[in-house]
Amino acid sequence: MKEPVVMLQEMLDSLLDGKKYSTLRDILVTLNGADIAALFQELPEGRLPLLFRLLPKELAAETFVEMEPEEQELLIRGFSDSELKEVIDELYLDDAVDIVEEMPANVVKRILENADPDTRKKINEILKYPEDSAGSMMTIEYVRLRRQFTVEEAIKHIRRTGIDKETVYTCYVTDDAHTLLGVVSVRSLLTSDEDTPIEDIMETNVIYVHTLEDKENVANLFQKYDFIALPVVDDEQRLVGIVTVDDAIDVLQEEFTEDIEKMAAIMPSDKPYIKTSVFALWKARIPWLLLLMISATFTGTIITSFENALASQVVLAAFIPMLMDTGGNCGSQSSVTVIRGLSLGEIEFSDLLSVQWKEIRVAFLCGLTLAAANFAKLMWINHLPINLALVVCSTLLITVVCAKIVGCTLPILSMKIGFDPAVMSSPFITTIVDAISLFLYFKIATAMLPI
Amino acid sequence: MKEPVVMLQEMLDSLLDGKKYSTLRDILVTLNGADIAALFQELPEGRLPLLFRLLPKELAAETFVEMEPEEQELLIRGFSDSELKEVIDELYLDDAVDIVEEMPANVVKRILENADPDTRKKINEILKYPEDSAGSMMTIEYVRLRRQFTVEEAIKHIRRTGIDKETVYTCYVTDDAHTLLGVVSVRSLLTSDEDTPIEDIMETNVIYVHTLEDKENVANLFQKYDFIALPVVDDEQRLVGIVTVDDAIDVLQEEFTEDIEKMAAIMPSDKPYIKTSVFALWKARIPWLLLLMISATFTGTIITSFENALASQVVLAAFIPMLMDTGGNCGSQSSVTVIRGLSLGEIEFSDLLSVQWKEIRVAFLCGLTLAAANFAKLMWINHLPINLALVVCSTLLITVVCAKIVGCTLPILSMKIGFDPAVMSSPFITTIVDAISLFLYFKIATAMLPI
Repeated sequence: MKEPVVMLQEMLDSLLDGKKYSTLRDILVTLNGADIAALFQELPEGRLPLLFRLLPKELAAETFVEMEPEEQELLIRGFSDSELKEVIDELYLDDAVDIVEEMPANVVKRILENADPDTRKKINEILKYPEDSAGSMMTIEYVRLRRQFTVEEAIKHIRRTGIDKETVYTCYVTDDAHTLLGVVSVRSLLTSDEDTPIEDIMETNVIYVHTLEDKENVANLFQKYDFIALPVVDDEQRLVGIVTVDDAIDVLQEEFTEDIEKMAAIMPSDKPYIKTSVFALWKARIPWLLLLMISATFTGTIITSFENALASQVVLAAFIPMLMDTGGNCGSQSSVTVIRGLSLGEIEFSDLLSVQWKEIRVAFLCGLTLAAANFAKLMWINHLPINLALVVCSTLLITVVCAKIVGCTLPILSMKIGFDPAVMSSPFITTIVDAISLFLYFKIATAMLPI
Repeated sequence: MKEPVVMLQEMLDSLLDGKKYSTLRDILVTLNGADIAALFQELPEGRLPLLFRLLPKELAAETFVEMEPEEQELLIRGFSDSELKEVIDELYLDDAVDIVEEMPANVVKRILENADPDTRKKINEILKYPEDSAGSMMTIEYVRLRRQFTVEEAIKHIRRTGIDKETVYTCYVTDDAHTLLGVVSVRSLLTSDEDTPIEDIMETNVIYVHTLEDKENVANLFQKYDFIALPVVDDEQRLVGIVTVDDAIDVLQEEFTEDIEKMAAIMPSDKPYIKTSVFALWKARIPWLLLLMISATFTGTIITSFENALASQVVLAAFIPMLMDTGGNCGSQSSVTVIRGLSLGEIEFSDLLSVQWKEIRVAFLCGLTLAAANFAKLMWINHLPINLALVVCSTLLITVVCAKIVGCTLPILSMKIGFDPAVMSSPFITTIVDAISLFLYFKIATAMLPI
């Protein structure tokens, strides 16, 4: 959608030049924070401080959160201390923490110095949690109710304190020590009689996570239970914060990207491609490339050891690419399917034998189909001698079966020993399958041909 | 977590045998619908109807929705007509539609016959929408407000009608013709004065989707804007339903699985692996395998045309696997990164040249690193003659560069011409890169070696 954006940019440009600030403000308030941030990305950096200051407080905070770290840093450097304080205080805590994590040290120092002491203390507490934990994703803005409140008192409490809460829709009932006793949805509040005590309508079987729970597990819980928020507790079952569904969706997307990168033998990075430097991309890709290249030379050794066979029947070399490619594709199909199944929790270690049994049968069906098609082509199009065609096609069949067995087994085994199954990806499996396949190829050829 | 499940199963088994129905009910009501459904999956089918009937109505509906289609069908066949009606009427509409879509025709007929006429009509309306559209994901249970309501009247309206609504937290303001005028969050209602008219606090810049919008775009909107619900309108801007965030998360997971399958050259399927028959897996995998095998034989033709060169320097064959594997891995790294960037909207067609420029530079860095490492190995470990080592390493460098250019370009081009970039996946790219790489290998070898 480049055209309308260009139109908007030119419009904003002329209004800025003409100093039509109230018109600009009227335009901007019709937009959503995410959209304003996207628009700001297309504008020259010099314009941003002026435009940003036109935004009303709440919209300014919404927009700031959606901006890219480089632009956030630019704005912060231009803010006066009181402007900085105003923006930071308006942010939800988990958003403030996300921003602080992206800023260089001197900017962080300035942010913390200018936040009010309470906010500063809370930011520091959340920063202590490990990067991939529930604690690092959570926010502390939630509604706390006492069990003896009535529904009417609860609603009044929400009205009084509700404005800054990131989600009021699930309220948490705690005692004085902040121990989590139950949850009450606003839906229950609105559909119950006003003088019902909270403890009568609260749900006591609460599904919660611990502060150190891995964030991918947290995100999967959202998918399983259809929640919009999940409470986070510490070792003493005390409520310390909540995770909201929007953060869970972001985590799911990050995890997808990470899994895909691992399957392609790239060290995962968390920056979008456009922002990643050439050097960073090289660093992420070269380790596996080197490792896999070294292991592929092992495959070359197999060929060297059969050099005499190859010299006497050079035509054998022509089928090596087809065998290796087919083995690689078959192995990928199995490994990718199994890795995805493991990730979604549909396959577990105990399913290993049934997965292998299924893959063997699929492999035979695929292998026989491919071998038959290939045999027909070799005999009637290429006019090969029948024993040569048999060598190629029987190797093809065995390759397909080996590929699928290796492809489905390695990810499950690697999960069992604690490695990420996505790392046991196509490149690794392809290397192993190639070695087996070439070894058998030359063995069968030596047995069936005059070599 | 097999052990506790086994314990629970045995416990449920003995209680059932001892006919301790009220104890069983007490246990089941402490659980969540998703958990009960997971438990039911582990129990013998014969037990399900009895256990299911112990559940209170709302929990029964929650559980039913989370069960697998085979078990749902089993229960439905066992239900009396009035039991069936009770379950169907208790379901949210989008869940009822999901279930109807999975059932065989005679079961669907029975469900529709026994639903009340209003439910039946609504189910039929939603079934008309194309499978991948917003219309097929939506539910019609939402809160509708009139603009002249006060906050107090709105809350009373929610109380009165709110119980069956899947989400009360975003209310939609429409006129008599159901034209969507604005949205009001329950949060605004709870934090505004009771006699404020709704039209004063409603948000008129509504972000919505059309009934025929692709469901993947709908899900991405949830990630972009952090919504919990999104209104769906028809051609006349009339509100016809809403999509909720839990359905958006499910769509994201499905789309990701589909993308991964495409990248591994599998025809996408929507059943979990465990439930897919051997024959169905074969059907999903064999088309691409056949196609890719045929195109790999083209690569073999290149080798055949250089048979004389190969016969005179058989050692050349030993490096073919390493060249092909490295080319394949490099191509995958680029294509997977670009496909993911396209999917997240971080890369567009207009970025083609800058992506290519970045990939060329990364390719040179990777290629030089790999060629240098390989050269060192070939000279000082394998003791190859220097001109042979140069042939292999220069081919390696060119292969890496070609692989990354092809790998980043094909997905972007395929998106431009309307194909799914994920289909332009590693297997396709590998085949093309192999052909280029082997052709150049033999050309360089013929030029630099005595052949």
